[in-house]
Amino acid sequence: METVTTARFLPPNVSEEDFTAAISEFREAVGKDFVHTDEETVSQYDDAFPVTSDDEFKGSAVIWPGNTEDVQRIVQIANRYMIPLHAFSAGRNLGYGGSSPQVTGSVLLHMGKRMNRVLEINEKLAYAVVEPGVDYASLYEAVTEAGAALMIDPAELDWGSVMGNVMEHGVGYTPYADHTMWRCGMEVVLADGEVLRTGMGGMPTSEAWHLYSGGLGPSVEGLFEQSNYGICTRMGIQLMPKPEEAVSFAIHFENESDLEAIMETTLPMRIGMAPLQNAPIVRNVVFDAACVSKRSDWQEDDGPLTDESLEKMKRGLNIGYWNVYGTCYGPRWLIDNYLEIIRDAYLKIPGARFETTETLPYSEDNPASDLLKARDELNRGVPNRHSASVFEWFPDAGHFFYAPVSAPSGEDAAKQFSDTKRITDQYSKDYLAQFIIGLREMHHICLPLYDSSDPQSRDETLDMTRKLIDTGAKEGYGIYRAHNVLAKQVADTYSFNNHIQRRFNERIKDVLDPNGILNPGKADIWPARLRD
Amino acid sequence: METVTTARFLPPNVSEEDFTAAISEFREAVGKDFVHTDEETVSQYDDAFPVTSDDEFKGSAVIWPGNTEDVQRIVQIANRYMIPLHAFSAGRNLGYGGSSPQVTGSVLLHMGKRMNRVLEINEKLAYAVVEPGVDYASLYEAVTEAGAALMIDPAELDWGSVMGNVMEHGVGYTPYADHTMWRCGMEVVLADGEVLRTGMGGMPTSEAWHLYSGGLGPSVEGLFEQSNYGICTRMGIQLMPKPEEAVSFAIHFENESDLEAIMETTLPMRIGMAPLQNAPIVRNVVFDAACVSKRSDWQEDDGPLTDESLEKMKRGLNIGYWNVYGTCYGPRWLIDNYLEIIRDAYLKIPGARFETTETLPYSEDNPASDLLKARDELNRGVPNRHSASVFEWFPDAGHFFYAPVSAPSGEDAAKQFSDTKRITDQYSKDYLAQFIIGLREMHHICLPLYDSSDPQSRDETLDMTRKLIDTGAKEGYGIYRAHNVLAKQVADTYSFNNHIQRRFNERIKDVLDPNGILNPGKADIWPARLRD
Repeated sequence: METVTTARFLPPNVSEEDFTAAISEFREAVGKDFVHTDEETVSQYDDAFPVTSDDEFKGSAVIWPGNTEDVQRIVQIANRYMIPLHAFSAGRNLGYGGSSPQVTGSVLLHMGKRMNRVLEINEKLAYAVVEPGVDYASLYEAVTEAGAALMIDPAELDWGSVMGNVMEHGVGYTPYADHTMWRCGMEVVLADGEVLRTGMGGMPTSEAWHLYSGGLGPSVEGLFEQSNYGICTRMGIQLMPKPEEAVSFAIHFENESDLEAIMETTLPMRIGMAPLQNAPIVRNVVFDAACVSKRSDWQEDDGPLTDESLEKMKRGLNIGYWNVYGTCYGPRWLIDNYLEIIRDAYLKIPGARFETTETLPYSEDNPASDLLKARDELNRGVPNRHSASVFEWFPDAGHFFYAPVSAPSGEDAAKQFSDTKRITDQYSKDYLAQFIIGLREMHHICLPLYDSSDPQSRDETLDMTRKLIDTGAKEGYGIYRAHNVLAKQVADTYSFNNHIQRRFNERIKDVLDPNGILNPGKADIWPARLRD
Repeated sequence: METVTTARFLPPNVSEEDFTAAISEFREAVGKDFVHTDEETVSQYDDAFPVTSDDEFKGSAVIWPGNTEDVQRIVQIANRYMIPLHAFSAGRNLGYGGSSPQVTGSVLLHMGKRMNRVLEINEKLAYAVVEPGVDYASLYEAVTEAGAALMIDPAELDWGSVMGNVMEHGVGYTPYADHTMWRCGMEVVLADGEVLRTGMGGMPTSEAWHLYSGGLGPSVEGLFEQSNYGICTRMGIQLMPKPEEAVSFAIHFENESDLEAIMETTLPMRIGMAPLQNAPIVRNVVFDAACVSKRSDWQEDDGPLTDESLEKMKRGLNIGYWNVYGTCYGPRWLIDNYLEIIRDAYLKIPGARFETTETLPYSEDNPASDLLKARDELNRGVPNRHSASVFEWFPDAGHFFYAPVSAPSGEDAAKQFSDTKRITDQYSKDYLAQFIIGLREMHHICLPLYDSSDPQSRDETLDMTRKLIDTGAKEGYGIYRAHNVLAKQVADTYSFNNHIQRRFNERIKDVLDPNGILNPGKADIWPARLRD
């Protein structure tokens, strides 16, 4: 048996002796090959984009549970030794801390390492059931192998966990972009080791667990999202029936100042779910450029990107300052009608250029066609990792996220753009962003990038991100998801009635997890014993 | 000041003296005109369809709060005197107990009596914000008066509360039929008097409270539905942008045995949200007949409806045994294409007849056109109370609901129909039902009718409904909503892991409402002090 030598980091208020005993019990419970304390294995779970130079956000050990019963046993042991567990699905929550824990010394629960099966694909009723480790790539593969006429809704990068993304309120880009809306039916291990099945899953003979999210009494699935009240071991995700055809389009807009008009054009076409059927994105030139080129291709120095560099990008890549990507689905007659309406609407904005996957087929030497192809894939449910290239925009690029949610209006977009751009300019950082347009809201996804090998670059960027959050909050723009290092600041902005949301969340935490063992500090929800 | 003489019914474990003191404090808190203990006023809130002969489900007093602060004061007083409160919106939860409480002696909180304002209508972002008393008729009127190009999704009867329907997981018939999906942003008074605003409502400056249901941390709105954890005082409800045009259709099918084919035809056209854009209903001849005629028009005796009587109904009303109603929305070219696809699909079932609001315009002497008109109104967002005629199917008709949820498959529909029909025949009761077809589930809404003036008819029907519930549960068909008198039986069917759902709900109850003052027993969730 692998022995615990010196623990890498001990959890707060846990003695070396107790920690060693707990590890030994974990090994007995799930098998010694699935519990690791060695630096080499555990450090792989540190944040891929470290955000401070201190020993923060580091795990002490990692467990790879194999099934629900393993998880039940693990939480029971953790309760006895008061060991904080940091459960995550695939650990790809990049920009939000990845797989790193809020509390240093936590024992990491890499749920998806072994629990990575697609448990069911139901073509007729159009859903799948997944374990935590199923990522978009493997769900796509499973659906394809099953020959099911279903389309998944991938997140931006194919390596993300389907379940993890739902739990973090992630979004995608097809008509099923709102992942929370389409999850249905969870199995959750509670902090005391009990297994809860939600909704119709409470009726052992029901076949509607993943079809209808209600049941009798309250709907509790939302309670387990972005929280630390339980560990999800199984989830239903409803899938869109595969459309007859799909044609994607790109619309390139010349000027920064076009943003307001783009949004006002988008809103009425989107809110009725037609003719804009999917969640389109409005992406700036820098984000597009980072997907297909390097920063040094356009500008030598590290200073803010000059107007001249931005112009070079636009001309060099054959795109606009803003670029809208979307897709029409259905029988051909429907697609043709919708495309025409969409084209006519956007072309009223001077300088706009409209292309489709048919007018701009993929060609190696045309970056604009490469960008459209990547979006077309995602929008047709084919996961990729095209935009992972932003991690190579400059060497060792890491990033935070600044992602406020607001009405999808021209005024709100223009306000957010000008505030954000002003602040990123002040800090000499790039403004790299895309708006994802839901039905009545948009996510303004900004990636404050930094050189993760340079503490100064990182500290400046963290400082800038904090400033963005506070500036946005003053204008009423709330963040939907927070990095460990930013969780308290973001939670503080939800201040109505003396922070009733936090106080409410803490009451639920205390009753469901009195020992505070599950993901303490997640979304700034702390158990009583670790609350200051 | 109105004095409390003898209380009508005292709450459990509350002395007459304490009750009198509490009533006096309620009067001081909200105004004496808004607290009533007289028999005449309070008895109006008894179940309109009484279900037992005992003094069950009866209130002791009624309060009409005027605003959120009133509600805060009321719960604080109730905590001091341990008075159970039964809060409801409009009290139109007919078939589920109406406005009557689970615990006799509860003080009724008629939330909607004075809190009945439409607080906001936002045409551009397509939502409204309502207080508890806003019913479908008044929301429709408010939207119309505002001249907003928005369409509401009415429930079956126009007098129902918009908020109350969401809280009970009610459904409608337009593309926005899933009311839970489209509610967004709640203000809730907790049992201790604190006010919680959910999601983005936690950020005082955010304008996205009713646009995006997330925030930071868990989503708790579902927690307050069908539960007794708080009292909702304000809710956002998103509305569909008004379509250019809408054309409704009725399809009449001759035979009982057509049901399986109807469902298998419906499923693939519905699950992709097109060509069946709304939640269509599949209604049996008896339900349709009860909307436009009396039982005695067709059969003299009380016995089960004979095949001959059913045939008379079909011929007399010019409808089928099963009748599908739905609507196509959008520009004319889209509607015409969809109607053609829908017609061609259903007409493959022998004997089917396809009509639209254009081929079958309303005419006073054609009941089939009256039925289509009523559905067309609802499906175009115009509330009515056409089907309230079922309460006059025979004199003093009251009803329970038996409403299981299942996959919308032919097999499930046929199985439920044959089991239900067999049992209603055994009891010599009418089978009167409609299936409402969601995307991946259907609600089989059966109305076990009884003569509410006849204890024997009522007792037989209650007994039959219990049998239906147990028979369905054995097959895996779970109930989504329960009458007070049936709540325990229904909750018992959600038995997975030694009734973990109930045990989980009770833990939440105990921490949020330790004195157990809010709607004790709702959905069979009892506070510790009243739990057996």
